[in-house]
Amino acid sequence: MPKTAGKKNAFYAQSGGVTAVINASACGVIETARKNRGRIGKVYAGRNGIIGALTEDLIDTSKESARAIAALRHTPSGAFGSCRYKMKSLEANKREYDRLIEVFAAHNIGYFFYNGGGDSADTCLKVSQLSKETGYPIQAIHVPKTVDNDLPITDNCPGFGSVAKYIAISTREASFDVASMAKTSTKVFVLEVMGRHAGWIAAAGGLASSSDCDLPIVILFPEVPFNEAAFMSLVDKKVKDYGYCSVVVSEGVQDASGKFLADQGLKDAFGHAQLGGVAPVIANMIREKLGHKYHWAVADYLQRAARHIASKNDVKQAYAMGKEAVKLALAGKNSVMPTVVRTSNKPYRWKIGVAKLDKVANVEKMMPKDFITEDGFGITKKCRNYLRPLIKGEDYPPYGKDGMPKYVQLKNVAVPKKLGDFEVK
Amino acid sequence: MPKTAGKKNAFYAQSGGVTAVINASACGVIETARKNRGRIGKVYAGRNGIIGALTEDLIDTSKESARAIAALRHTPSGAFGSCRYKMKSLEANKREYDRLIEVFAAHNIGYFFYNGGGDSADTCLKVSQLSKETGYPIQAIHVPKTVDNDLPITDNCPGFGSVAKYIAISTREASFDVASMAKTSTKVFVLEVMGRHAGWIAAAGGLASSSDCDLPIVILFPEVPFNEAAFMSLVDKKVKDYGYCSVVVSEGVQDASGKFLADQGLKDAFGHAQLGGVAPVIANMIREKLGHKYHWAVADYLQRAARHIASKNDVKQAYAMGKEAVKLALAGKNSVMPTVVRTSNKPYRWKIGVAKLDKVANVEKMMPKDFITEDGFGITKKCRNYLRPLIKGEDYPPYGKDGMPKYVQLKNVAVPKKLGDFEVK
Repeated sequence: MPKTAGKKNAFYAQSGGVTAVINASACGVIETARKNRGRIGKVYAGRNGIIGALTEDLIDTSKESARAIAALRHTPSGAFGSCRYKMKSLEANKREYDRLIEVFAAHNIGYFFYNGGGDSADTCLKVSQLSKETGYPIQAIHVPKTVDNDLPITDNCPGFGSVAKYIAISTREASFDVASMAKTSTKVFVLEVMGRHAGWIAAAGGLASSSDCDLPIVILFPEVPFNEAAFMSLVDKKVKDYGYCSVVVSEGVQDASGKFLADQGLKDAFGHAQLGGVAPVIANMIREKLGHKYHWAVADYLQRAARHIASKNDVKQAYAMGKEAVKLALAGKNSVMPTVVRTSNKPYRWKIGVAKLDKVANVEKMMPKDFITEDGFGITKKCRNYLRPLIKGEDYPPYGKDGMPKYVQLKNVAVPKKLGDFEVK
Repeated sequence: MPKTAGKKNAFYAQSGGVTAVINASACGVIETARKNRGRIGKVYAGRNGIIGALTEDLIDTSKESARAIAALRHTPSGAFGSCRYKMKSLEANKREYDRLIEVFAAHNIGYFFYNGGGDSADTCLKVSQLSKETGYPIQAIHVPKTVDNDLPITDNCPGFGSVAKYIAISTREASFDVASMAKTSTKVFVLEVMGRHAGWIAAAGGLASSSDCDLPIVILFPEVPFNEAAFMSLVDKKVKDYGYCSVVVSEGVQDASGKFLADQGLKDAFGHAQLGGVAPVIANMIREKLGHKYHWAVADYLQRAARHIASKNDVKQAYAMGKEAVKLALAGKNSVMPTVVRTSNKPYRWKIGVAKLDKVANVEKMMPKDFITEDGFGITKKCRNYLRPLIKGEDYPPYGKDGMPKYVQLKNVAVPKKLGDFEVK
């Protein structure tokens, strides 16, 4: 009887929008599992997230060298592919859950690591219940990830710190640019950032201005109904006081009736409105009302993929969450998610905590009211104190002789299939 | 009689769109002038470019500490303010040239350093001719700067290497992101970059893919009339082969009739069409013709202000051009511009050359035909060999404890006025 008998394999998958550091979590999961070879067999990754589990399209991560896995720590995006696919409830789609158990059983999978945001936490919760429902022993651990920073309980979400750093720096850099041009040309710069419902990323734009680098920044949060008159009045004042103004606008900003300013009427696979293009809407408004020359930018994927300027604390925490997920699994836990617990603000200290998945799934953490200034267009000192440690430190990827970052592309060798086809509907 | 009698002061100004490294050139000018205190008096900077000279709004750079001037090397944008203002010919606007001489004479200015692109080279050329025309002794030296890389004679323009590095890295990062999402979501990513007439910046997007990191990149150059059918066919093929595709589109891309795809009918102070927003145009076309889900980004100022990921070679050359400009002035030169001369490609070696301004002004260097692949959508090996050294090396700015780059904001103390007001029309 081989020594590995009875040892269960692990399944790991990436879900939802990817980040600059989700692969650092994958690195934490795989390296920690490799260090515990006596207790965990292979780590199989789902090709394109949970779809890979349903279609039995598994990637054998043991085929990757230690060096390739280590390089995940500095590689943005989802190395195994992600997906936007939310599983329905067990009652509504028993067929899919049965299939999961079939695939897990065929490949001796006892650990389910799911790396994602709120929707994914919900899927992970449902998988965690399969053990009780079906009798098949599976431990499901969620690994937190989302640039939106909207998961509850955890102090912050891996992925957010890096996008926040990118937006804070980009806003500062672009503001310096506009300041240079304002006398005869551009006076207002508008930067559109991600964030459908929670304004965490937009808030990060506020860090561009600090006590040692005063800049005129106006923020439009999705949490604050758009008040055109107040907004125009503030932009006008900033231009009068500073000669120019930068506006950081969340893609999710809405008018008083709840309509997205950028609404194009499209929806994504989760039924969320598909947004984009609020920057030109705001810029045109400014031109019409105030007559200023403007420039606008839409950062889109650039912001969440910007591994080249990732936050060091974010990378550390993303790795730690992956590592801790494996430790929780080895400790026999199920239906949990490791969290970041802030134990001190100055100096910043954090430790790892744990949350029950039923407290995490489908709960969206909005910006606290006291993080937004009374006028609704800026961030408070309390917000700065919260955000500052999350963007602290640089964690540069290695660069090649060609001046380009050396990001890894894995071999992603498929595990031989044992089952018949399955159609994902 | 004071020791400095007979010693002339210098005037330095920044012109046109600013870059991540134009301040490195300013640093080169000022530090070199300070090292030659015996021969050059003070360096006065024009507040907001040539406008500062016309309105006698001069900045006394001697009021800045050595440390502040050194910090210009790692600070993006134009520290003294730039402007978009093209002086007419001496015949058409003698009033302004007379005023320049009046201001130069009032402040004992004998050296005119103008840091800009093609339009600015033309202004600098006109100033260089004032000596002959008016008898007032002034030496005008142009310091090359433009992200568009379209100045002739010089191998490349300071400012371009850093924006090229930013676009190459951002395209690689976003491509990794789309690759992760393509199975169930975004299949095509469109990135709009700067470049009205010359496709140098768009070409840099091609560096995202390399022999050790194969990525599907399609480039739309302003030099190549947009062929919708061929473009759609190529994007379709890339999506079939790779599962996804990234498109890098120059803001200046035109249809066969010469109409900008993004034309909004606006013009800037130089009479150039004011562009922006071709990315959503292309993205919508892809959706309509191929039905793929897309994301798009417009980098706008973020690309040219991105000092956080500046090219080391670019920073070195920007500084060297400023330094050389002062040396040329001290050598008695007039109406010239220092240039970068490439003496070897592998390994990359360069030296400083010099060009006569009448050969530089109003000449736009386009991409050579053999830099663009035959299908019109990619870059050739020759182009790669040209571009690669320009993005080589990282030159990170220092960061504070707050995780933000420490960019300097100068005091910009005004030189007391000696003359009456002057209205710039």
